[in-house]
Amino acid sequence: MRQTNRDWALVCLSGGQDSATCLAWAKKKFKKIFSVSFDYNQRHIIELEYAKKLSELAGCEQHFELKIGELFSQITKSALLDSNKSLLDKFELDDSLPASFVPFRNLYFITLAASICYFYGIKNIVVGVSQTDFSGYPDCRNTFIKSLNATLELAVDSSFEIYAPLMYLSKKETILLMKKLGYLEWYKYTHTCYEGKRPACGRCPACKLRLKGFEEAGIKDPIEYEK
Amino acid sequence: MRQTNRDWALVCLSGGQDSATCLAWAKKKFKKIFSVSFDYNQRHIIELEYAKKLSELAGCEQHFELKIGELFSQITKSALLDSNKSLLDKFELDDSLPASFVPFRNLYFITLAASICYFYGIKNIVVGVSQTDFSGYPDCRNTFIKSLNATLELAVDSSFEIYAPLMYLSKKETILLMKKLGYLEWYKYTHTCYEGKRPACGRCPACKLRLKGFEEAGIKDPIEYEK
Repeated sequence: MRQTNRDWALVCLSGGQDSATCLAWAKKKFKKIFSVSFDYNQRHIIELEYAKKLSELAGCEQHFELKIGELFSQITKSALLDSNKSLLDKFELDDSLPASFVPFRNLYFITLAASICYFYGIKNIVVGVSQTDFSGYPDCRNTFIKSLNATLELAVDSSFEIYAPLMYLSKKETILLMKKLGYLEWYKYTHTCYEGKRPACGRCPACKLRLKGFEEAGIKDPIEYEK
Repeated sequence: MRQTNRDWALVCLSGGQDSATCLAWAKKKFKKIFSVSFDYNQRHIIELEYAKKLSELAGCEQHFELKIGELFSQITKSALLDSNKSLLDKFELDDSLPASFVPFRNLYFITLAASICYFYGIKNIVVGVSQTDFSGYPDCRNTFIKSLNATLELAVDSSFEIYAPLMYLSKKETILLMKKLGYLEWYKYTHTCYEGKRPACGRCPACKLRLKGFEEAGIKDPIEYEK
């Protein structure tokens, strides 16, 4: 089996609160940290800019940005089914799926991270998935993460360890973890607002969830909101 | 758990002999078959044309062609390391890896196939990997395939079954399986030659391996070779 460096970690950064907290967690735990973001034509490019900024703040050895827009745009429901209209009547479509839903999203993200780790000899991968907040997504569950970990190791005969430090934390607990780690100010460079606004709108469901977490934690959100 | 159709299968087609044999195998075993090829800027575009041709010959319900060149070009050793020259001296590079090597290649291929299956409700995925011929690649082993199968199911809470009918067959046995299935003439639309030649060169390592398989099976290769 190929050896990897157990003191090094690659952190998956989305530009949001959760992955920023993971970055702080990894900074404390590992000697050398790297970061990676995925450009899949997300609505708000500011997320990628913040990810890069956080990587610098954390003193990451290197920040990677992988472009996977072409990939993801081909495997959505709309792309696969609309291009094959003749087949549409033969299938019972799951109407509950949004048009842009990409199944196996976390599997792709974490495998891409593992591809980087493979070449650089990095053992640890840190991701911000949480079973608590996203119980609707099966690929946020701990059983999935454990299974993928084994699959990645078998695929290349190398040693990896996927860490999901927020797996069982609520939003409030995540914020309190960041406080304990001492990097609350990093939240200034995280984006949550669905509307893509800076100052954030404060009214969309994402902003509301974020504000609720800070309120419950008894901490002031360092980003600005519209008056 | 999401239901999938147990009589339907998606066959991964590379345009080579092995996947052509898998297609014939799937045609006998399942009521409806679909096929998918991956365009990753491979050297010989004829492979993709043959894959499409074979899909038609087999009467596939639908042929998918996914473009993943952008993805793969970013996660090779040369792309990741050359763009970060400052890091090069810090890493012990594995010189045995070819510059174009993509770790987790089969993981990406099979997960992409599963993405299609997810939307179409297809239960079965058929791949031409073989532990016998490719013992150097860990992602051709049966343990990897089984582990990935479990991971895919956990990722989307859906039911899949990955079949690798050639797992323990030699080249000779694969050809004899095709004979038994009654589709030997399909081999006319398969490509093996490294040089990309039609008629095939007959001298490159790939051609030699192919010819050896036919010779051992006592069957004439239906493709033409240079005189």
